[in-house]
Amino acid sequence: MRASGTALPLKILAEQFARLPGIGMKSAQRIAYSMMSYTDEEAEAFAKAILDAHYNVKQCAVCQNLTDGEVCPICADIGRDKSVVCVVEAPRDIAAFERSNEYNGVYHVLHGLIAPLDGITPDKLRIKELVDRIGKGGISEVIMATNPTAEGDATALYISRLIKPLGVKVTRLAFGLPIGGSLEYADEVTLYKALENRNEI
Amino acid sequence: MRASGTALPLKILAEQFARLPGIGMKSAQRIAYSMMSYTDEEAEAFAKAILDAHYNVKQCAVCQNLTDGEVCPICADIGRDKSVVCVVEAPRDIAAFERSNEYNGVYHVLHGLIAPLDGITPDKLRIKELVDRIGKGGISEVIMATNPTAEGDATALYISRLIKPLGVKVTRLAFGLPIGGSLEYADEVTLYKALENRNEI
Repeated sequence: MRASGTALPLKILAEQFARLPGIGMKSAQRIAYSMMSYTDEEAEAFAKAILDAHYNVKQCAVCQNLTDGEVCPICADIGRDKSVVCVVEAPRDIAAFERSNEYNGVYHVLHGLIAPLDGITPDKLRIKELVDRIGKGGISEVIMATNPTAEGDATALYISRLIKPLGVKVTRLAFGLPIGGSLEYADEVTLYKALENRNEI
Repeated sequence: MRASGTALPLKILAEQFARLPGIGMKSAQRIAYSMMSYTDEEAEAFAKAILDAHYNVKQCAVCQNLTDGEVCPICADIGRDKSVVCVVEAPRDIAAFERSNEYNGVYHVLHGLIAPLDGITPDKLRIKELVDRIGKGGISEVIMATNPTAEGDATALYISRLIKPLGVKVTRLAFGLPIGGSLEYADEVTLYKALENRNEI
């Protein structure tokens, strides 16, 4: 007898969910139980979505963003300014920029940040692809848009030193108080950055 | 061009995750991205787990618990006391009882609680199966172990009135202060129940 009284296939399914980021074992069990009310079509659609995403999504030949085509829709869009490249850590960061509707350049996805302690050395990231891309010409500015963390800053600095000799302008996102935020709740480092980067009005 | 810059299969996968209880759209996207690092074997195993759980898990012919056999391991266990039946709302409640290691009887799963406003009338639950089971004889006590909520209490009362004429002892779980809890943080209803059900020491 299994002590938990849970059917084995349900247990296996819960374990699959528990491996995902942000889902604990209790939530995973609740999710697995909730899927028992799925129709055949719904269960098949979920399984198919997993396999479709796994087998059909690859990295864009130009910017390394995840896409189901050879080149991602952003790189393929003739309306986008190909001379400005925004370098981000992960595909999810592109979604954030696109939501703002303010950026009309293109992207380059590093798929990680330099973190020697975790074994992530520069050669593990898509830095070589960025250098090759700049080498082909047509790029005037590279915006380093990695997160304002120790690793994000270090990666931005590393790449900027590498590509500046290639004759492109390298910029970094501005950091300061978030819009709509309150001075009262700002942490010291953000406040310091906001002061340091103050602009004349 | 898709405004989000997200590959379509990834978007579809994220939507599947976002339908699950407790997972919002942001978490769902993060989960879908995280699965991009799965190997072929891992992706296939996840899809298979969904289909296995869907097609191989059914309700136990005796207690209506979810199982991959004809009869669940608890009902099939000759070491369990078949004369005591604990009536619960959902299969997850069985897992909770089994963890406590204190109960050696068997269960009956209602698969819901009576909630007329949500269209859940008694005939939608596995109440008929419970009555049939008692009618076959051999059951001396039925423990109503639905949650201490309005619906849980109403369901327990409804069923107890239905089965008492069949000559079985019907009991309800004790409610009071949780062990390890603090009087200071107990809500009024729990405290009232704890007072009302006080025992001589």
